[in-house]
Amino acid sequence: MRIALAQINPTVGDFSGNLKKIREFTERAVAEHADLVIFPELATCGYPPADLLEKESFLKRAEESLTEIAALTKGEGRPAILCGSVLPVHRPTGKHVRNVAALLEAGEIRCLQQKMLLPFYDVFDEQRYFEPATQQSLVVVKGQAVAITVCEDAWNDKMFWPRLNYSIDPVEELMKQWAVLPQPLSGPRLILNISASPYWHGKAEVRQRMIGALAKRHNATAVLVNQVGANDSLIFDGNSFVAGPDGEIHTQARGFVEDLVLFDTDNVPAKTVSVSDTNYETQTALTWQALVLGTRDYVRKCGFQKAILGLSGGIDSALVAVIAVEALGAENVQGIGMPSEFSSSGSVSDAEKLAQNLGIPFSVVPVREIYTRFSESLQPFFAGTPFGLAEENLQPRIRGSLLMALSNKTGALVLTTGNKSEMATGYCTLYGDMVGALAVIGDVYKTEVYALSRYANREREIIPEDTLTKPPSAELRPGQKDTDSLPPYEVLDPILKAYIEEYCSAEEIEARQNVSVELVRSVIQLVERSEYKRQQAAPVLKVSKKSFGMGRRFPIAAKREV
Amino acid sequence: MRIALAQINPTVGDFSGNLKKIREFTERAVAEHADLVIFPELATCGYPPADLLEKESFLKRAEESLTEIAALTKGEGRPAILCGSVLPVHRPTGKHVRNVAALLEAGEIRCLQQKMLLPFYDVFDEQRYFEPATQQSLVVVKGQAVAITVCEDAWNDKMFWPRLNYSIDPVEELMKQWAVLPQPLSGPRLILNISASPYWHGKAEVRQRMIGALAKRHNATAVLVNQVGANDSLIFDGNSFVAGPDGEIHTQARGFVEDLVLFDTDNVPAKTVSVSDTNYETQTALTWQALVLGTRDYVRKCGFQKAILGLSGGIDSALVAVIAVEALGAENVQGIGMPSEFSSSGSVSDAEKLAQNLGIPFSVVPVREIYTRFSESLQPFFAGTPFGLAEENLQPRIRGSLLMALSNKTGALVLTTGNKSEMATGYCTLYGDMVGALAVIGDVYKTEVYALSRYANREREIIPEDTLTKPPSAELRPGQKDTDSLPPYEVLDPILKAYIEEYCSAEEIEARQNVSVELVRSVIQLVERSEYKRQQAAPVLKVSKKSFGMGRRFPIAAKREV
Repeated sequence: MRIALAQINPTVGDFSGNLKKIREFTERAVAEHADLVIFPELATCGYPPADLLEKESFLKRAEESLTEIAALTKGEGRPAILCGSVLPVHRPTGKHVRNVAALLEAGEIRCLQQKMLLPFYDVFDEQRYFEPATQQSLVVVKGQAVAITVCEDAWNDKMFWPRLNYSIDPVEELMKQWAVLPQPLSGPRLILNISASPYWHGKAEVRQRMIGALAKRHNATAVLVNQVGANDSLIFDGNSFVAGPDGEIHTQARGFVEDLVLFDTDNVPAKTVSVSDTNYETQTALTWQALVLGTRDYVRKCGFQKAILGLSGGIDSALVAVIAVEALGAENVQGIGMPSEFSSSGSVSDAEKLAQNLGIPFSVVPVREIYTRFSESLQPFFAGTPFGLAEENLQPRIRGSLLMALSNKTGALVLTTGNKSEMATGYCTLYGDMVGALAVIGDVYKTEVYALSRYANREREIIPEDTLTKPPSAELRPGQKDTDSLPPYEVLDPILKAYIEEYCSAEEIEARQNVSVELVRSVIQLVERSEYKRQQAAPVLKVSKKSFGMGRRFPIAAKREV
Repeated sequence: MRIALAQINPTVGDFSGNLKKIREFTERAVAEHADLVIFPELATCGYPPADLLEKESFLKRAEESLTEIAALTKGEGRPAILCGSVLPVHRPTGKHVRNVAALLEAGEIRCLQQKMLLPFYDVFDEQRYFEPATQQSLVVVKGQAVAITVCEDAWNDKMFWPRLNYSIDPVEELMKQWAVLPQPLSGPRLILNISASPYWHGKAEVRQRMIGALAKRHNATAVLVNQVGANDSLIFDGNSFVAGPDGEIHTQARGFVEDLVLFDTDNVPAKTVSVSDTNYETQTALTWQALVLGTRDYVRKCGFQKAILGLSGGIDSALVAVIAVEALGAENVQGIGMPSEFSSSGSVSDAEKLAQNLGIPFSVVPVREIYTRFSESLQPFFAGTPFGLAEENLQPRIRGSLLMALSNKTGALVLTTGNKSEMATGYCTLYGDMVGALAVIGDVYKTEVYALSRYANREREIIPEDTLTKPPSAELRPGQKDTDSLPPYEVLDPILKAYIEEYCSAEEIEARQNVSVELVRSVIQLVERSEYKRQQAAPVLKVSKKSFGMGRRFPIAAKREV
């Protein structure tokens, strides 16, 4: 059987746009003589649809889409299609939606395999919406038996994971059915998995190792077709692949772009080079691609073309500018310098140089006089008090208002430039530098910002050397350095990572990193005290296992025993 | 058996504070000769703990709390205690936390009844954290059999609900066990339910009707002990009660305050007057109490005493000021007037009068000159363009910056004054009037704002008559009225309610409300287009079935087919 892996980039809720893509990819697969074309999980409606699933009209449109896709399979020599969608459930008990892999053949819906394992952790809320399958069966496509699974259904192999989230292993159950198939169908085992599996550092490799191990254990060929593209915070990396019974990867779609690859079950290619993003250099390159795709899709799927951002001469805004230019084109990105009286001389000149290197327009709007005007108005309240947080925060808040005014006037989305170290510790100003539609590097620690910035300069100097080498500073008071308030980032970032991503205690971090428990506690306190800021932050592009946003749900008005 | 319903207000994560409350209420119950003291669901750690449950130390503290509470039951004449808590699960599969009702007697943990039905809709995420019970058993307390359930376990009665969320009815299962109890235990049936059941309009009545019906159906006495107090967006109204086998309410704790009420199973009081908030007048009074409690608990549990807010002379900010004064005391609330060149003459005078009526300090910080300074700085970009959204939004953004500066300087939390109609339609400025720590009336439609304001004036005029009667205006351009951009609120609010709370389609709303489908579509479009604003909004106090925030999860970068 000749199988086409149709790795498409659907937009949530864009039924007609997604259907158009499904048509196009089907015709391309027909031209390649495919017997079966496989689309990702929820390809009709995009993943994740979230509470749009509460709308009856949404489920109806999904149902209609499936009927239209079924029509594509009608006629001599037309391929079958396996496609993910939502469908209503008409039962008196339980959730009213199911997440299905629909097998379409000869113009009809031949089989609906409902998803059985519904992830409910981190960013996943599937049990909020979906009624799980209670059983799964092998089905016959073009005369060959196949095991159809939806994403998580293949993620509960007891031989691979030290701890299981679910008590059922749908793949194992399906493979048991293989043993009792009648002779003509009991040929080579084939597992099909349609996925919407979002990116984080190392995820593509986990996915391949896991499915590879599964294929080997069950002596099967496993085909995984993943969604590509970003929807809000989630970036889907694609990287669809075929793992053989030897556990190796034999066919591989590209990462971070739409792709169509063919695979013939009767003519297995030799092992291909597999993705490996454990290497730091490569991981940086993958993060780069993820952020570029995430930025492009967010801006475009929101219906915008242009972006605007503040350029401070610092490394964070410089990095975001380079990503934005790669995502949207230099003609669609505008930089604004907003120096205050506390800005260094390099602030404007470094930003200007960056803009020149990128070929984007750069304008300067000084905040000094607006700041002075604010200070005069606040004088009755502030007189006799020392210069402090209130005065510091006013400057980024003026900048935020200026950027939003320019955004309102020009129709360009504001990109936020804060990094994960800042968002974690609250070293950022709510309604100030946190202003924006998308926090492009909000899941990137400061130390990773440096690595990505060096990567941005891999071919030529785009980010000026000065920006890369000067000590980080918010420049909100004379001579200020980040290290006045925070430990050096080389010390801070591993503490944050251990606390936020691994839920380590202060004592565990102390032991692991050879830093004082008092220092660790002071960092944890910063994280806990700034939860209110993060809950009003722009959506953060997720590139780590635990990013700020929907995947991390903490109360604000709670007591923390650090 | 003499039962004490101990309706306490725990703070999430405050183990020592919650334990102190549990001790105090236990001693009060001892003085009242109670045989059994019942505390709400998750009383040790507060509800909802959210991702704090991912921390091992959190589960350990909950476990230690239960041991300490068990010690309270040791000794001659000491009562048993039924108390909610989380506990770790030590199993190789599934979630690692359980939500339990712990029965403590004679110094020991006698029984742990795990919650079976885990709500996962609206604001509830329980399947994200908890492993459900697989069985439930009657237990014996002080020689009497009781059926112990945790909140949702009692919410799946097929005789009461038209549609069931779950296929199991734990109460029905437990009642079957009663039939086969040995003679001395087969006495009067007693159902105990510990809850953390948040408030929305009409909820207290639903709770009583539902539990009443359950008690009657099973010929049992049902005791429901609910949490009181607010944690972030959720307000728990208390209103714990006892329903008799006649389905009537026989004992009732107060709403919105801590309370301890006693009930003797051998000496049932006559029917008490039950809560009824279907009456509009009463519903307004209940919403009022909910918002006061929600504001007080948010500010105090965040560790603050004082609040500051902008007073525009309009009805929204006036209402929030009155609520804040009732919640925090006049000495802890400060009003700031920030007129611009477009503000009406009444803007400052009405605000001043309100402040006088409330006895709170009121200061004026004009924004005109700051606005002029901004305009001059933006002149190179704005020259030749008409006055529009950018210019309008600048004014509330200046106000937001001023309020935040004063907040930073004085340590008072900023209260946001936007209502639900504005948040729904996006008729509000992100980083402008949306600035603040808590959206006090973000779940109150404008028409309800009027009802609450009249309620605020029930004893004397606090909100000036002018504020109540002038046409609503954002005052961001000359002569502006809300009705320039929006339908009248009497038309708008029912459309919003039908769309947001009932997921009605445009056609259904047209038919129901006798408005044109075009008008409905234009309103829906406003709702859909402003999702990005709501995702960066301050936490909203929930008083309706569907409020903005965690209970409503919509994508931003999605296509909406209106």
